[in-house]
Amino acid sequence: MTRIDRVLRAMEEQNLTQMLVSDPVSIFYMTGIQVEPGERFYGMLLRKDGNHVLFVNNLFTIPGDAAFQKVWYSDTDPVMDYVREYIDTSAVLGVDKDLKARFLLPLMEGKETCRFVNASSAVDQTRGVKDAEEQEKMRAASRINDQAIKRLRGLVKEGITEKEIADQLLGIYQELGAEDFSFPPIVSFGANAADPHHMPDATVLRAGDAVLFDVGCVKDGYCSDMTRTFYYKEAADKNREIYELVRRANEAAIAKIKPGVPLCELDRTARDIISEAGYGKYFNHRLGHFIGMSEHEFGDVSLANTKAAEPGMIFSIEPGVYLAGETGVRIEDLVLVTKEGAEVLNHYPKTLEVIHGE
Amino acid sequence: MTRIDRVLRAMEEQNLTQMLVSDPVSIFYMTGIQVEPGERFYGMLLRKDGNHVLFVNNLFTIPGDAAFQKVWYSDTDPVMDYVREYIDTSAVLGVDKDLKARFLLPLMEGKETCRFVNASSAVDQTRGVKDAEEQEKMRAASRINDQAIKRLRGLVKEGITEKEIADQLLGIYQELGAEDFSFPPIVSFGANAADPHHMPDATVLRAGDAVLFDVGCVKDGYCSDMTRTFYYKEAADKNREIYELVRRANEAAIAKIKPGVPLCELDRTARDIISEAGYGKYFNHRLGHFIGMSEHEFGDVSLANTKAAEPGMIFSIEPGVYLAGETGVRIEDLVLVTKEGAEVLNHYPKTLEVIHGE
Repeated sequence: MTRIDRVLRAMEEQNLTQMLVSDPVSIFYMTGIQVEPGERFYGMLLRKDGNHVLFVNNLFTIPGDAAFQKVWYSDTDPVMDYVREYIDTSAVLGVDKDLKARFLLPLMEGKETCRFVNASSAVDQTRGVKDAEEQEKMRAASRINDQAIKRLRGLVKEGITEKEIADQLLGIYQELGAEDFSFPPIVSFGANAADPHHMPDATVLRAGDAVLFDVGCVKDGYCSDMTRTFYYKEAADKNREIYELVRRANEAAIAKIKPGVPLCELDRTARDIISEAGYGKYFNHRLGHFIGMSEHEFGDVSLANTKAAEPGMIFSIEPGVYLAGETGVRIEDLVLVTKEGAEVLNHYPKTLEVIHGE
Repeated sequence: MTRIDRVLRAMEEQNLTQMLVSDPVSIFYMTGIQVEPGERFYGMLLRKDGNHVLFVNNLFTIPGDAAFQKVWYSDTDPVMDYVREYIDTSAVLGVDKDLKARFLLPLMEGKETCRFVNASSAVDQTRGVKDAEEQEKMRAASRINDQAIKRLRGLVKEGITEKEIADQLLGIYQELGAEDFSFPPIVSFGANAADPHHMPDATVLRAGDAVLFDVGCVKDGYCSDMTRTFYYKEAADKNREIYELVRRANEAAIAKIKPGVPLCELDRTARDIISEAGYGKYFNHRLGHFIGMSEHEFGDVSLANTKAAEPGMIFSIEPGVYLAGETGVRIEDLVLVTKEGAEVLNHYPKTLEVIHGE
């Protein structure tokens, strides 16, 4: 079954006969056509009868052999009027989650209009279950990430700053065969590790600091994402305590994974361990997120997601404990749900490591 | 008048008493608060009475002294329900252009709901007119870009590939004091220059090739963006012809700029010159776009934009001619509208240059 057919089947389950997909990555996923539209409208109208329509600005080039209708427009054309002409106004129109107000509102303001629903899951849940080719690419991206973490660990030394380490990572990834970052790297020393989204700055490494790397690359269009936390010169008791706690949470959640297990139960497993140790309120984010061609894909591993794990799903498991102004730890792996359980895509060890770089 | 007050005044001109702003750059522009929310909701509800509300995931940190109400939510909270509580459902709600369907549709589906309009221009046109501090930052970013183009020109030599040049640019920018790219650099040789959005690849430079650089950096949070086209070893007559044509179009459009002139007239000026020479259909994009804290800001210089130039506006003037499979040329400057005319922010010469690198 082609990817488009899988999406159409998912639309059918939502009783949808038409859907406008605007995420360029989803369009690439379904068609192999790659366009980076920037602020310009780019969309694919999927229709139950198979007569799909691609709307594309004539600035972009797409392969001529694409087996569906193309509607070209120029910068001065009222493109949403064109889209409306192809919509069945007697039926509900599904749209994907990222369709922007400046495209959605004009569509809604037509003379005749239909009901609009966020039907993103039809595409997103299809993308969430990776096929064999995608799984292999995800493994390759994570293998590179394992090696990259090893190289980053080797850069840790007296007097270095977060930014000096982060600035070397793109070169490391490229040497290892990756194309790019999958997201801007996080390198956090000491108290900065308490901010899950800290950006590398001029902070200088000091003995006793936590050294947190949350990094990922893109290889063949697929993303990796891993976090490891080290300690420099020494690890205080408090750091050891929260490190082992987070490691237990990470490992316990991974051990629970198998088809049929609700994703919220994975979050619950990790969260309970952290809460029972009294650190519940310092783990202030979901346990994980889906990942693939985009670094954060639809679907999270949180208390709010009651969906069951299915073979082929790939998501992160990344518990953390963040003590503001003091220190923080996060340990993150990507996991692939298999028929029996889970394959962990990251292999860099998770035992507590104290680095003694000169 | 503060930036927020300027936005409120622009809302008033649209008869709006409330507006939900979701663009993190716009929120930063108005408040100085910087959050990168990724896929999470982040928004600021502007209210006529001055009681503004910021909705922010508790994963992010914001300065405690912000003078407006904050509503914190966690990953599992129904945040759009929270937003709805603060909306006056008896009035129209303005939203900004990039608000995503997954946030907009739930807002619309409330029990009581108001009318929604794309009121993005209230923020975007305010951002489009730069204050003195912003103008100075834009000049600084373009000064770096002038130097970077000079450095790129020095890299042009026998056997080099597009990607080998592009890969050196981030380092060049950082040496020159910039923080980052403002967009992925375009380096195009020969026929690749006919694709306005070509991505640098393994294409090897050959004698006679056009060498097009379309590059920009971020300095102190503000973007530069400039294009220059060179020729390697020799420039064929056809290349010289279209180069001089595009240069004339660029210079004629810039010469027209002064307060009160409709932006469409600038596009028309450049387009007429190119059309009269028989190349009209090979200039298939708008003449320019606004730029500032984002690389492409709201507002374009196209036949569709009848808005008049105002002092403080900064936009690009970038005519081009693209001959598919053959060659292309684009010459782009950033310009600041002044009281009397225009200040061109780029100073790298525009005379045709043939590079004779070894």
